[in-house]
Amino acid sequence: MNASTALLTDHYELTMIQAALESGHADRPCVFETFARRLPDGRRYGVVAGTGRFLEMLRDFRFGEEEIGFLRDRGIVDGRTLDWLADYRFSGDIWGYAEGEVYFPGSPLLVVESTFAEGVVLETLVLSTLNHDSAVASAASRMTAAAGERPCIEMGSRRTHEGSAVAAARAAYIAGFGSTSNLEAGRRHGIPTAGTAAHSYTLLHDDERDAFANQLASLGLSTTLLVDTYDVRAAVELAVELAGPALGGVRLDSGDLVGQAQQVRAQLDALGAHGTKIVVTSDLDEHAIAALAASPVDRYGVGTNVVTGSGHPAAGLVYKLVSRESDAGVMEGVAKASKDKASVGGRKFALRRRSADGVAQAEIIGIDERPQDDGDDRELLVRLVERGEVVAPTDAGTARAHHAMARAELPREALRLSHGEAAIPTTYLDDWS
Amino acid sequence: MNASTALLTDHYELTMIQAALESGHADRPCVFETFARRLPDGRRYGVVAGTGRFLEMLRDFRFGEEEIGFLRDRGIVDGRTLDWLADYRFSGDIWGYAEGEVYFPGSPLLVVESTFAEGVVLETLVLSTLNHDSAVASAASRMTAAAGERPCIEMGSRRTHEGSAVAAARAAYIAGFGSTSNLEAGRRHGIPTAGTAAHSYTLLHDDERDAFANQLASLGLSTTLLVDTYDVRAAVELAVELAGPALGGVRLDSGDLVGQAQQVRAQLDALGAHGTKIVVTSDLDEHAIAALAASPVDRYGVGTNVVTGSGHPAAGLVYKLVSRESDAGVMEGVAKASKDKASVGGRKFALRRRSADGVAQAEIIGIDERPQDDGDDRELLVRLVERGEVVAPTDAGTARAHHAMARAELPREALRLSHGEAAIPTTYLDDWS
Repeated sequence: MNASTALLTDHYELTMIQAALESGHADRPCVFETFARRLPDGRRYGVVAGTGRFLEMLRDFRFGEEEIGFLRDRGIVDGRTLDWLADYRFSGDIWGYAEGEVYFPGSPLLVVESTFAEGVVLETLVLSTLNHDSAVASAASRMTAAAGERPCIEMGSRRTHEGSAVAAARAAYIAGFGSTSNLEAGRRHGIPTAGTAAHSYTLLHDDERDAFANQLASLGLSTTLLVDTYDVRAAVELAVELAGPALGGVRLDSGDLVGQAQQVRAQLDALGAHGTKIVVTSDLDEHAIAALAASPVDRYGVGTNVVTGSGHPAAGLVYKLVSRESDAGVMEGVAKASKDKASVGGRKFALRRRSADGVAQAEIIGIDERPQDDGDDRELLVRLVERGEVVAPTDAGTARAHHAMARAELPREALRLSHGEAAIPTTYLDDWS
Repeated sequence: MNASTALLTDHYELTMIQAALESGHADRPCVFETFARRLPDGRRYGVVAGTGRFLEMLRDFRFGEEEIGFLRDRGIVDGRTLDWLADYRFSGDIWGYAEGEVYFPGSPLLVVESTFAEGVVLETLVLSTLNHDSAVASAASRMTAAAGERPCIEMGSRRTHEGSAVAAARAAYIAGFGSTSNLEAGRRHGIPTAGTAAHSYTLLHDDERDAFANQLASLGLSTTLLVDTYDVRAAVELAVELAGPALGGVRLDSGDLVGQAQQVRAQLDALGAHGTKIVVTSDLDEHAIAALAASPVDRYGVGTNVVTGSGHPAAGLVYKLVSRESDAGVMEGVAKASKDKASVGGRKFALRRRSADGVAQAEIIGIDERPQDDGDDRELLVRLVERGEVVAPTDAGTARAHHAMARAELPREALRLSHGEAAIPTTYLDDWS
């Protein structure tokens, strides 16, 4: 049993349960939905990530003695609510987009079918994991699309919270990054790890020759030498002098990368080091990666911009009650009225409409009934939890494969980096039929 | 003993240790420094946070059997390095700005004095905690400054990673927020928690009357009712009808807050509910808070923008080797040459120069020697770790008090929200003397 995740929750979820227990409505059958009202400004698609982590934490979402003791000592909820929480175990059903799936405004990323109290208490855990991981994966997918066949290395751990760093490495991997610098992500999620040396290593030594020679002796000729501590040209010459043409790589971490990559490639080739790779790592984002597309660069190391969602650190997902049983005992769609935060009531179903040659054309969302499949459509909601038991894969590898498949279906213009609208329209069944 | 934090580390730190062990330089006395080259665009000061969390995690930074097993299985470093890591325990000294202190470009926020290998392996843990928490605290401090005497409630857990959420609540509290929605932050860091109900609670009930009546019955008249699910005017009238003038508060979460706050205040007063508070919570940032300064608002609930640093989710702090013993056995300042990422070599000392009436005037940084105190200066570097033992307080309350003191010293213009330069200049001793 891992540590309880039950207090990764907002205060109001528990006070709502207390009030609903009082009103006798706590056990009403309900449907909660997670969706984005819109994509971040200019983005053409989003990428769902965090689902697997949420499902794993759901298993540990139990109010144990310590958690109950804290809530009692603080007087956060009354005794009846504490008793209810002590017995809590999610027993409902959850459907959702497979982790790694692409999404659009209104896509029902998670559909939670449970009693009010069982579902409302999961709001924060659902949104924390999905908002963070989807923000990272959505940015990372644009970067790997811009990088094409060249591998991207996630190395942003130092620019985000130590726990986010592990989740960000996982989300970037789902979106096509090949490796991470983060060792805990390697251990916990099985992601390949990578890294060689920082400027401090070179500065530790009395000269660059000493630093490079020792790194080669210890890590082997396939290592990557950081060549911009002093003078790049001199460092590249020294690197090849010491390692020979078998040198694995050189890394550039500052300056004009486009200009430097050309010069360094020419220099390496002139020295016979045709196989030596050039790794660039300075403040890259998807636009910088795209700007280097014609440069002789072999690998991109991305830090701050991938772990902070490249300008959009939260995906803007919300978790809303969309349906509940009425006094009359029938399920009714419900929605908040306010204009700027409107939502669509009702239990959603979703298909990705595809052309006969498999290109995504529209997000078809049915309200309270499944839309008619036209033969080429792909079902988007898969069963994640069945009567409280997790029934879907939660590993990053499965999600990574799913993302590659789902992104490949998008129309070509979806991968453009310029500001644009969602790549395909979201169509509610009412409008469509 | 808590879970090990040792793998919250980048791959390259361990390969650097391996190479330094090979070269015989692993034990060289070194000084590493954490600083920001610049403040985020337009900001006038930064706020140090995360120091206490770093110090607590430093205690658990040990490579146990599981961690060593992972590194061995993956072949990340060689056997000699694994043996060294298995024995690792930080045994050096760390100095730093007290948590909650304000800072400026070049301020030496952390000064780590240790061997190369002992210090280099802490880079990621230091930067993850300080970059994240300082980004949140720096944004939060602008918000509490704009809010003045009105309390700010941190409620952004749903918009950031579940672990970041807890740290963000702590950082916001340090910067003057009064409470958080996050229960784990309440338990772990002793922060007051707050919250009442979401729209889903109102929508659960067949009508708003039923929802409000039950909430009042369960949570008492001092509760805050969310009045914008359907029609604000009708909801406020209903709220006072049911609760009477003793109603604790009403919450507005959408629409034109400036206009609505005026109308709702007038309506409450007309109904005799003069003591009922107005809480606003829709997409607030420091600018929205400032825009509400003349509105009859009593409390601000801030979500996304505080936990994501209000546009700057990472503080831009770096961790650099600035001094090390040479072959000749003397400490020498070292620095990378590249123009866009220059650093200043040498062990730093720092004073806040103050006028006779206690207003901050300059950040005085001495290189390799302590600057002369002019009598009104305040020493900025305090001892955090002495020969491996944490000797400074790590709690949020102490940091919160420190921040209030340090911010109060700043010149008035430091608290302006408009784009500006750092509120006081950073002056290196060489220039000053």
